[in-house]
Amino acid sequence: MMDLKPPLSGSDQDEAKELRPKFNSDGLIPAVAQDSATDEVLMMAWMNEDALRQTIETGEATYFSRSRGKLWRKGETSGNTQSVDEILIDCDQDTLLLKVSQKGPACHTDRKSCFYRKVSPDGALSFADLPV
Amino acid sequence: MMDLKPPLSGSDQDEAKELRPKFNSDGLIPAVAQDSATDEVLMMAWMNEDALRQTIETGEATYFSRSRGKLWRKGETSGNTQSVDEILIDCDQDTLLLKVSQKGPACHTDRKSCFYRKVSPDGALSFADLPV
Repeated sequence: MMDLKPPLSGSDQDEAKELRPKFNSDGLIPAVAQDSATDEVLMMAWMNEDALRQTIETGEATYFSRSRGKLWRKGETSGNTQSVDEILIDCDQDTLLLKVSQKGPACHTDRKSCFYRKVSPDGALSFADLPV
Repeated sequence: MMDLKPPLSGSDQDEAKELRPKFNSDGLIPAVAQDSATDEVLMMAWMNEDALRQTIETGEATYFSRSRGKLWRKGETSGNTQSVDEILIDCDQDTLLLKVSQKGPACHTDRKSCFYRKVSPDGALSFADLPV
């Protein structure tokens, strides 16, 4: 992969034909993973520049673990890998969307998706999914 | 809406039956908006506690604009509102997923979704969608 160029501003960034990701002050960019087959949103995690490069180069979703302070190839311990079918980036290039082929459950709770609870108006959460 | 309780830790947070959102050090939580009808991921934006409350209470997606430093009801100027059909929260309650009925284009570039560019392995971006 080529060297990453710095972000532009305004509509230049929106219409740029090259990757110019805007990392936050911690050097991170959020990445949403969506199941390519079902369109279900599976999880959101963070990437630093190395994680993004590695994801692009290997085709396997690799994130940056903020708690452990290191790269984390999704599924490296659980086996629940994410093979990346497509990477999309948003208008101002500060969020990534990964279309993935998910092996096993995406969530560490053994649920298919991390978004298994629905928020009620009174603040109660109802469970939409059980561990698989 | 009831008062928000503080986050728990580990599996207590994963299995909590009440909303205990984890805001970041700026008091913000990322919110992914997904089209209820098509399952297309439309955008990602940020909410502070007020934005989350207002979204829950009004059923209209309301975010916090980091550039303007204030609440922003989606579509308040463009008319491209997001009526919220469902709010989901992830395992550790640090990301929201809104299923929305989107009026008009979600992106300020007049595209349906903000994720209209695909990242190639060489860092080039190809456009998947034109302004509507």
